[in-house]
This record gives sequence, structure tokens and C-alpha cells, in this order.
Amino acid sequence: MTRKHLVILQPSGRRGLVDEGVSLRAAARELGVEIESICAENATCGKCMVLVEEGRFEKDNLHSKREHLSPVSEDEKAYFARRPKLLQDRGWEVGQVRLSCQACVLGDVLINVPEESRGNKQIVRKSATQREIEIKPSIRKYYVEMEPPTLAHPHADWERLAQGIEAAMSLVRRGEENLPKAADLSIDYTVLRTLAQTLRDGEWKVTVTVWQDREVLRVQTGYHEDSFGAAVDIGSTTVALYLCDLRTGEVVAAESEMNPQIVYGEDVMSRIQYSIEHGDGLEKMHKAVIATLNKLIKQAIRHCEEGRRPDEAIPSQQEIASSRYRAPRTASPLGNDVTSDDIFEMLLVGNTTMHHLLLNLPPTALGHAPYVPSIHKAVNIKARELGLQINAAGNIHVLPTIASFIGADTSGVLIAEEPHKQDENWLIIDVGTNAELVLGNRERLVCTSTPTGPALEGAHIEYGMRAAPGAIERVEIDESTLEPRYKVIGEEAWNSGRVKGICGSAIIDVVAEMFRAQILDGRGRFRKGVQSERVRDGGNGQEYVIAWAAETSIGRDIVLTLKDIRQIQLAKAALYVAARTLLNQMKLERPDKLILAGGFGSYIDKTRAMLIGLIPDLPLEDVYAVGNAAGDGARIALLNLEKRREAAEVARSVQRFELPTDPEFQNQFMLALNFPHMTEPFTHVAHLIPHHQVDPMAEKLMKK
Amino acid sequence: MTRKHLVILQPSGRRGLVDEGVSLRAAARELGVEIESICAENATCGKCMVLVEEGRFEKDNLHSKREHLSPVSEDEKAYFARRPKLLQDRGWEVGQVRLSCQACVLGDVLINVPEESRGNKQIVRKSATQREIEIKPSIRKYYVEMEPPTLAHPHADWERLAQGIEAAMSLVRRGEENLPKAADLSIDYTVLRTLAQTLRDGEWKVTVTVWQDREVLRVQTGYHEDSFGAAVDIGSTTVALYLCDLRTGEVVAAESEMNPQIVYGEDVMSRIQYSIEHGDGLEKMHKAVIATLNKLIKQAIRHCEEGRRPDEAIPSQQEIASSRYRAPRTASPLGNDVTSDDIFEMLLVGNTTMHHLLLNLPPTALGHAPYVPSIHKAVNIKARELGLQINAAGNIHVLPTIASFIGADTSGVLIAEEPHKQDENWLIIDVGTNAELVLGNRERLVCTSTPTGPALEGAHIEYGMRAAPGAIERVEIDESTLEPRYKVIGEEAWNSGRVKGICGSAIIDVVAEMFRAQILDGRGRFRKGVQSERVRDGGNGQEYVIAWAAETSIGRDIVLTLKDIRQIQLAKAALYVAARTLLNQMKLERPDKLILAGGFGSYIDKTRAMLIGLIPDLPLEDVYAVGNAAGDGARIALLNLEKRREAAEVARSVQRFELPTDPEFQNQFMLALNFPHMTEPFTHVAHLIPHHQVDPMAEKLMKK
Repeated sequence: MTRKHLVILQPSGRRGLVDEGVSLRAAARELGVEIESICAENATCGKCMVLVEEGRFEKDNLHSKREHLSPVSEDEKAYFARRPKLLQDRGWEVGQVRLSCQACVLGDVLINVPEESRGNKQIVRKSATQREIEIKPSIRKYYVEMEPPTLAHPHADWERLAQGIEAAMSLVRRGEENLPKAADLSIDYTVLRTLAQTLRDGEWKVTVTVWQDREVLRVQTGYHEDSFGAAVDIGSTTVALYLCDLRTGEVVAAESEMNPQIVYGEDVMSRIQYSIEHGDGLEKMHKAVIATLNKLIKQAIRHCEEGRRPDEAIPSQQEIASSRYRAPRTASPLGNDVTSDDIFEMLLVGNTTMHHLLLNLPPTALGHAPYVPSIHKAVNIKARELGLQINAAGNIHVLPTIASFIGADTSGVLIAEEPHKQDENWLIIDVGTNAELVLGNRERLVCTSTPTGPALEGAHIEYGMRAAPGAIERVEIDESTLEPRYKVIGEEAWNSGRVKGICGSAIIDVVAEMFRAQILDGRGRFRKGVQSERVRDGGNGQEYVIAWAAETSIGRDIVLTLKDIRQIQLAKAALYVAARTLLNQMKLERPDKLILAGGFGSYIDKTRAMLIGLIPDLPLEDVYAVGNAAGDGARIALLNLEKRREAAEVARSVQRFELPTDPEFQNQFMLALNFPHMTEPFTHVAHLIPHHQVDPMAEKLMKK
Repeated sequence: MTRKHLVILQPSGRRGLVDEGVSLRAAARELGVEIESICAENATCGKCMVLVEEGRFEKDNLHSKREHLSPVSEDEKAYFARRPKLLQDRGWEVGQVRLSCQACVLGDVLINVPEESRGNKQIVRKSATQREIEIKPSIRKYYVEMEPPTLAHPHADWERLAQGIEAAMSLVRRGEENLPKAADLSIDYTVLRTLAQTLRDGEWKVTVTVWQDREVLRVQTGYHEDSFGAAVDIGSTTVALYLCDLRTGEVVAAESEMNPQIVYGEDVMSRIQYSIEHGDGLEKMHKAVIATLNKLIKQAIRHCEEGRRPDEAIPSQQEIASSRYRAPRTASPLGNDVTSDDIFEMLLVGNTTMHHLLLNLPPTALGHAPYVPSIHKAVNIKARELGLQINAAGNIHVLPTIASFIGADTSGVLIAEEPHKQDENWLIIDVGTNAELVLGNRERLVCTSTPTGPALEGAHIEYGMRAAPGAIERVEIDESTLEPRYKVIGEEAWNSGRVKGICGSAIIDVVAEMFRAQILDGRGRFRKGVQSERVRDGGNGQEYVIAWAAETSIGRDIVLTLKDIRQIQLAKAALYVAARTLLNQMKLERPDKLILAGGFGSYIDKTRAMLIGLIPDLPLEDVYAVGNAAGDGARIALLNLEKRREAAEVARSVQRFELPTDPEFQNQFMLALNFPHMTEPFTHVAHLIPHHQVDPMAEKLMKK
């Protein structure tokens, strides 16, 4: 039997076992990643270049990269020998860079497919929604004209400038109270160092950039208006950066990348563990995310230069229906000449572990009881202290954390959704690998978190994949024939396109549809005696065939296995009991509204999610998917200084509850594994399954 | 004729022309610097090692160091080959380090004589005076015990600590108003990074160091009391550092070094010029002074470890007489285990050029009209931003500058002497290569500055040298025999010891005594027909022999030349017109008190200085020498936070005047070259020269 090796492809995160001896390019295709080639794999076009990365896997240790690939062939050597400049420009060495049509897999490898070699671009699902944000900037620019110094008036440069700023401020902001005086202002040390030259070069006419009416971050000769900021959402899996025009709030570029820390562990717990087990683990993961942020900044700047539009946000039906959302602003003409010096602030959110790794704080105490972060309150740090390549004097602001597993991302969600300003009780669920839940109103807010595993994002599912071309995103099953219809990302028509796998939204669909079509029973078991060639024993248990091999680009049947179904059951039970815990705390039967935050919430089918009990049973019109609310919160706090103060207050006031671990809770959890959950009336989508009856075993449990 | 080459010896600053071919050790001895040797110059003891430095001289460019010395001899090679570890430990290379008994001078060279090779140690004249300082610290320590976090109370580490600090503060400082709340406190980012570990290592019992009731600079496990700060006076020639115990104010170590920037120019103007002419000039001078400060910090720490007393301050008669000075505190037992992490603040003063070079601010605009500094107000910068090796989170505070040539040193003098709190009018003169003058009282203060040249410090004087063993420090001349008596530093008796040169205080003495003994006339010319073998033509004009070759260690007659006398005349005329300008501004005939600041002021003979018109004509009891008042001001501001605010206010209120350049002023200057000055009554020391009569030529000028 042929040996198999693990191949992981960055930045997509696609991974899988491939046969020993296949070329990297073939392996990548098999895993759903297209790599360019126009020379028919003759080692002459160079379009298929990939980088062999080093890294460590959670379970499998990756040894020397060279042993795990065939040696560099003569053809490859010849190709690279003809292009010394290409290697030199990028700082690559032969062996680190390979032609993927030539290099063959001999062991486990981690491969990076550079942008230029990718056959199809990934769809960025985390894209800033367009929402109305009142702009109350922390960054303001003032044009200042000064009298040049004379022997009679030889005041120092800074004092002269500060006087000028005071005058300009009181002119521009006439009527505002508490405007700062010259003596209240300070100047960043690095800016002071070049001040004398700048004032003289500008012949005493300059534009100053002032942060929080307090500190001068930049002095430029002449008149300038541009100022930019970056809102960043550091997810465990994806890092998304929105470059914003601080005057208009407009997103001028949206960039995202895989979180590079994924090679040190897929979820937060394994990254915490990695930092505990490796002396340099924290430093490595910190540097990795800083490098990625710097890369995203560079990309965003380049895209602005190219005048490219950011990836368009696709508003969901719910977003459009909700009165809380406005139509996108008319974008101003792009093609701005943005430089890193024009970016004065970066506002970041992320879960508490991402927060700690970003700030190089040891996450050790986050990983075990009593689960304590190093800091709750928001952090302001000079960009140069963190090595982030915006303006060196610029400010890095990270929103407050609430608890070990309720991070700055939740602070972002809170100021974006504002449950603390509502009379109604809202339940907000932000679903990722971990789910954070907040419940309450203007009187009181409670929160908790629960691990849901990566299944809802399409990971750890046999044919799961991220939302990308070739992924099935919607599935329906005919009740009588048990035949599926599916929709593939990038295809207009149903049941068309070459299928590579199924992404999160479709996984929910399949499970719900299998339940509705009575392929599965209420406990998630395959019913006996179902007559369909789609239902079969796959060797490792029963499975349902969604697409036949002939319909795919991978040449294998794409199925949902019993194991996959268990993953979904575990995730939805975890979500359910977390929500129930909070509702009990607030003495509520159900919330008035349900807000689904996170990219995931935008793509799932609400009805089907409710059908399997993944989300609480509510009138459908009270369920809102708001997209990446954490990222929106970052953008809001970037543009509105008051919202940072609000974040601090809300984060401080929200009460956190640990999920209980007593037997009663275990019982609840067991019940919640069923479709739908078994402990409550089930009304709002019950009509979809008229034949539904509670499993007698579950009923028995419920009655205890 | 033998060729001569310039040899400069660091850190003493001794310099001079020596014959080509002499050994470095012989050259050093000739220039008054003893280098150890116990092997009779056989290249075996290694005691005479010196370092060949690179550098640039104001006028002579120094070429490659190797061409200017004989090649490394076989004996030297053999010596170093036997001691690889010695070189390795210090990072020296053969060729850079030489045995000074072997290396012969073949061109101009700059040599550093390491401490261990020095035959006699330099006396540090700039030593902190002991004065009563009210301690109002910017640095406070608090011992904090916390409840460990639990699942029920899992607050973050920082919030837990901040609560603890608030509690500890309100306990320790009961009754004080405006104590900060936990939410007002912040923590240095680098300290936050290790906070989680420290709290747990300390089992929730820690000592925190808080800066200005605002920011936590350090967290240590357990109970600690020590905190230190450094007060630094950066002179153009000497950098002096006083390491102080911040609890008691005690100076636990006093260190000084030559200012390394001296190789880029002796005075501030030539250093400004160097920075203009060389792209990397500013950077070089900045790095040089930072390196010296770091060296001084290390030395101070080492001396504390060794339990050595700092060099004792020698209080002058005036200091002891003045009621404003108190006896030194009883020193606490030394031998403290100080580490750089225990040093939380460094408070610096220096003239405006030193201020700019320290902060890496371009001094260009300081050097030409209208003479504008980059900043007046005091600067606070994190130690790590400047690369100063105290606690990385510690604060660097530089006192405010007043004008281009009235710097942070004058701010220091002001808060040390407090003229702004007096009813009387005080004239404060701080004499160095440049002199700063402040005049006034609590109603109004005016100030100006004037270059006086280095003559008053013993430089640019034929046999001038710094105050060190072998230097003549006092001279008297018998009126009838014209024979001198002299006192040598390090010798008890008069006319004893091997003479190497004359230092600043003795130079004033000789000129005054030559005038009193009628060797010089009122215009500073050698009188005709004086009968003494001491008075002779030296080839380059007339000169007076102070010590015959046989009395010296350099084997040459030590003389004062006509050229030397002119240097003193220029310096005293400059001082005189500057003082006159201020007195005119204040509409005063003379001040009520004269305060001489600067090390120089402590060592000159007041009577003789008044005799030649170097200082204004006042009752002797109204003249005070206060030593290094700028350094004292630094120490005061280090220990007393309110004094920093006071410095800011005074520096802002003092009015600066440029010295005029009109013909009337030129005339005044010409008259002031005379002994004493010619434009005013001369009363308080006139009895010492009953035979004195005004030069008819000068009288004529005065009557115009």
C-alpha cells in the first residue's frame, strides 16, 4: 500500500494526506488548491513556484523540510540559475523555493503558495459591512502658519508650533469647549527630532497631525488632508485588516490572511499549550502575527495605489432588511497615494489569546483555572514599540478584554451592536472555533463562552473546506427521492461546477435536510431501512453522498459522515447550553432578539440552523445576522473616540459566568445533542417537520 | 629638525606636540599623563596598554591610526598572543590596543589610557555639594498583597494589582489629597509583559514602583525598598553623574568622564559646525554621549557594589560660610547592591547644544542667527527610547532650555540658587567655556550668555592643564623680588612637588599677581625695565617663569606667556560686558550679591579675580562660590518633583537679552580688556594696588 503524507497549504489552510511521490502541484490540486502552470509541468514557466515553510504541527512534528521532498532536480536548478535576480529580489533560496510541478512529496510538509502562483483567489468572507458611524476622530490635522523666528523673537521651534496649533484649533473648532492650550500639547520624540528641519523646509507653513488633542504625531511641510487608520480583527484562523480614511470613515482597502500562528496550533488552547511547552513559543507566535499585520498593511497600501476597490461586502438579506443598516456610502475616488506614514492608528480586536499573543503577553494563565488574562483595560502603545509599520509615532489601540475566553472581539461586538442601549433583551452569539455569548439590555448584561470546535467553519469535517470557489455552500434534499441539490460558490446555477468540498453553511444544511428528510433520527443516527444509493457504509461508518466523484474536481465522492454529524451535534449542544445558562441567569425563557455575529452567522440558513437546534427557537424575523461585528466594532472605535470610552465602560460592566460542570449540566448537554434540543418547546420551525416526534429515549431523559 | 606630532590623551584631555619616534608612554609622560609600567619597558608586564582611538580634530584631520604609529612589534605580538582571553573579554584587537612602551609616534594620534593603565587618578572637581533638599519623589514604592484569583473572582492581573496599589497608597499616604484611583494608573508595556509571571512567582505579594503617581515602572516579587536615580551634568568638557538614593537623597556614587564629543570639536560652536558638515555628525556625537552615560552608570553601580565612597565634595570657604548651605548628611552604610533596574530616573542638565546632542536633535539652528533651539520645555522620554541603560521603563527628564546659549544647565542653576525667590538683586555667573549670566529678583529675571573661551579652564594656555596632581593651583608673587611661590595639587607644602602645568585657578592668580607686582601694566603689557630672570623673551614674545625645569616633571620651564595673558583679558572683558548689559537692563549700578556657579568659581581666588576685573567689584563678603550649581539643580529636580514644575515656570519667565554688537559696545569691550576694567569705580580691592594708576590711553578712551 502506498504511504501517505500530510501536506498543508498556506495561506488557504487546506490540508490532507496525499500519496508518497506525487508532485506538490498534484497534491495541492487534490486538496483543492489550484497552482498555476502554463508549461505543462516542464519546469520552464516557473508559474508554479511554491515556498517550503518550516513549522510545527500540533501533533505531527515536521522534521527537516528537505528530507520530506525530492531533491531539487536538474531542470529546477537550470530554471532558477537563469533567474538570479528573481531569487535575490525576494530573498529566496533554491530549495526553499521549489517548482511545485517538480518537487515530490516524500514526507509531511508545510507549503506556502505565493499569491502569484495561485490558480484561483480565495474569497474573503470577512469584509467590513457598511454601517453608519459617527466620526469623532482621535486624529486631526491642522494647517499652521507661523511667523519665522527673529533675534527679537527667538522662541524655540516646538513652542512656536504649539502656539500655532492652539490658534489653528481655536479657529477650526470655534465654539467647542475644553480645547487644549499650547502648554497642554506634547510632541512625539521622533517627530521632535526632525521638527527643526521640517519647519524650515516648509518655510513655517506646515500641517500637523494631532492625536487625541494631545500629542503631535507628524509634521509635514505644506497643506495636507489625508489621514488613515487600520481596523483589525485577529481571528484564530483569519486576520482581517480594513484600511480606513479617517476623515470619511470609508474603507479604502480590505485585506485578509490566514493567521500564521495556525502552524503552532489550530485553536487557542493548543497555542497556549505551545507557548508553555516552548521557551520561544510566545515570541515566535507574536512575531508571526506582527509580520502578517505588516504584510497586510503593505498590501492595503499597494491596493490603494493601484486604485483597486476592496472586496465588496456582500450584505445579507438580514442586513438589508434590518433598519439598523444603511446603504453603503458612495465611495470617494480611489487611487489614493497612501504611505505607511499616513496611517496614524491601528485599532485591534481579537479573542483574549490573540490579544495576548499580539501584545507578547504570556497566555499561560489563560489556559487553566481560574483563567486569568494579564489585563482587561484597553491598551495604547506606540506603533514602533510593537514593530507595527504604520507611522512610527502612531498609536496601537487594543479594545478591552472581558475574560479569559471573552476577548477584545466581544468588546468590539458590544459597541457595534449596542445591547447596553436596548430595552429589549438581546442575545448576541459570535460563532467561531469558540463562541462568545452576551445577553441582556440597558440594565444588565451577562456573558459566557464555550468551545464549539472548528466544525461550524468547515474544519475537521471529512470534506469540509473554507468558503472558496468549488465549495458547496447550500444543500437541499428532496424528501421523497432523498436526492440532493447543491450550489457551488462561484456558480450561478444549482448542481453545476466542479465540486471540491463543502463549507460551513452547507454542512448545517445537509444535517438539517437529512433530519427533515428522515435520513437521520432525532438523535442524529442514520435511520434503518432508508432506501437510497446516497446512504451507504463508507467503511468508517455510515455516510451520505452529496456529490458523486464525476461531479467533483477531486475525483472522489463527497460525503457527510456520521463522524461529521457528531461534530455538528457537539457544537450545537455547546451553544445551546451556553445560551440556556445566560437565560437562566437573567430569568428569561428566551431573548427578544437573536444577533448572530461572525462571518459564519451571515451565511448559514437561519431556518435550517433552528431546525437542528443550533440557534434558539425564535420567530425568524427576530434573528439577525450582522456579519463580522467584532471587526465592525474595531472600525467604529477607530473612527469614534467616544466609542472607546463606551467600550471600556461596557466591558467593565458586563458580568461573566462560567459554564457549570455539575451532573445536571451534563444531562442538559446530553439532551441538547438531539435534533432539535429536547428541553424546551420547539415551535417556530416545527411545521417544517410535521412528522417529527421526540425520541422516546430523549423524552425519558427530559422527564427526569 | 625633528618633526613633531600632535598626541591627545583621553580621558584626561591632555594634548601636545611630541617628537617623532618617541614611545607613546614617553609622549604621555611629557604631556603630564603617567602610564604604569613595571617591566622597564620590555613589553612583558602589559601594564602600559593603551587604546588607539579614531577621531576627528577641529582643525587637524586624523588619518588612519595605523599609519601614525610604528607597526606592532614582534615583542608586542608575543605578549598579546599569550593572552587571547584578555583581548576577547574586552573586545579589543591587537593594533587597536598597543603597549605604549613599544608603539612609537609617527603622526598625530588620539590615545585612550584605560583606567587600569593610569599612573595617577584624576581628581574629580565636579562633585555634588551636600545641600538640604526636600524630598518630594517622583518615584514611590508600594508593597502590595493581593487575594489570588479564583473562578469566582477571575479579574485580570493588572486590574487586581491596580486595586492593590490604590489600597496601599491610601494606607501609606493617609490624609493626602488627590491620590490616584486604580483606573487612573497605567503600567509600562514592558512591565505588563512579565506581570503574570511576577505576580505568580511572588505568590501575589509584590513591590511596585510607581512614577508620578501614574505609571508602574517595575513589579518585583516580595518586599523591596531601594530606588535610585541619576543626576547628570553634561558639560562641553566633562560629564558628571551622581547616583542618588531616591529615599534619602544621598549621593551613593559620583562619576565623571571627559565628554567624548570633544574629539568632534572643543566648544559648542565647533560641534554644531561638525554636525552641519557631516551627515552622520549628529548621530556620532549623540551615540558618543549616550555611550559615556552608560559607562558612568556602570561605574557608579560597580562602585556601590564595592562599597566605595564617592569622591568627597570639598566645600569651599564660601560654601561653609554661607548660611544657605548645610553640613553633609550622615551617609548611610554603603555597599548597596544596586542594579541598573533599580535606577528609575535620570535627570539631566547641560547647555542647549549638549541638550540637543543628547536628545539627537539637530543643533543647526542653534549655530546661526536667530539662534533657535528645537524645544524649550522639559522633555520626558523612556530610557529605552534613548538607549540609556537604567531601568528600561525608567524616565529620562531633561530640564528646560531658555535660549540657544542658555540651556538646561541654567535652569538647574536657577532652581538650585533660587534668585526668583529673592528680594535682593542677585547676579549669577556660571563660568565654563561659555558663561551664562542671570540677574534679578522675585520681580524680574534677565539673562544673557557670552563665550569666554577655554582659558579660564586651563585650556589653550601654553602650560595650562586640568586640575590634577602636578598642577599648580595657587601662585603668589613677591612684590620686591618678583619671585613666585606656588602650591601644587596633591602636595601639602608650598613650592614642593613635581610640577606638570598650571590649572585655571592659578592662571588667574599669576595674571593678578603680575599686575599687582607691576610686572604687567594696566593694559596687560610687560612693563619695560623689570629686573628679574623670571621675565624674559621666550621667542614668541615675553613670558614669566613660574617654575624652572628642575622643579618640573616635564623637564621644561613652566611659563605664562603674553599670549596666555591675552586669553585671560579676552575672557574677562567678555564676562564684564555681559554683566554690564544685564545691569543696564535692570537699571542697576551693581548687584546685591554675586553667585559664582561652576566648578571653576569654587577654586579661583575671589580677591585676585576682582583685582583683574574678572568679576564685578563688590564687597568680598557678597561674593559666593556655589560650586556646580547646575549639577545641584539636576539633583534637586531628581529628588523633588515640584522643583521640576518650578524650573518650567522660571525658565519660561526669565527674559533673555542678546549682547549688542554696536560700536559703543565694541568700545566698552576694548576698555574692559584692561586691568581692572576702566569704565567704573574700582574700590573693593583697590587697596591691594596702592600704586595703581589708570593707563593714560585707557583714561582717554573712557572719557570719550
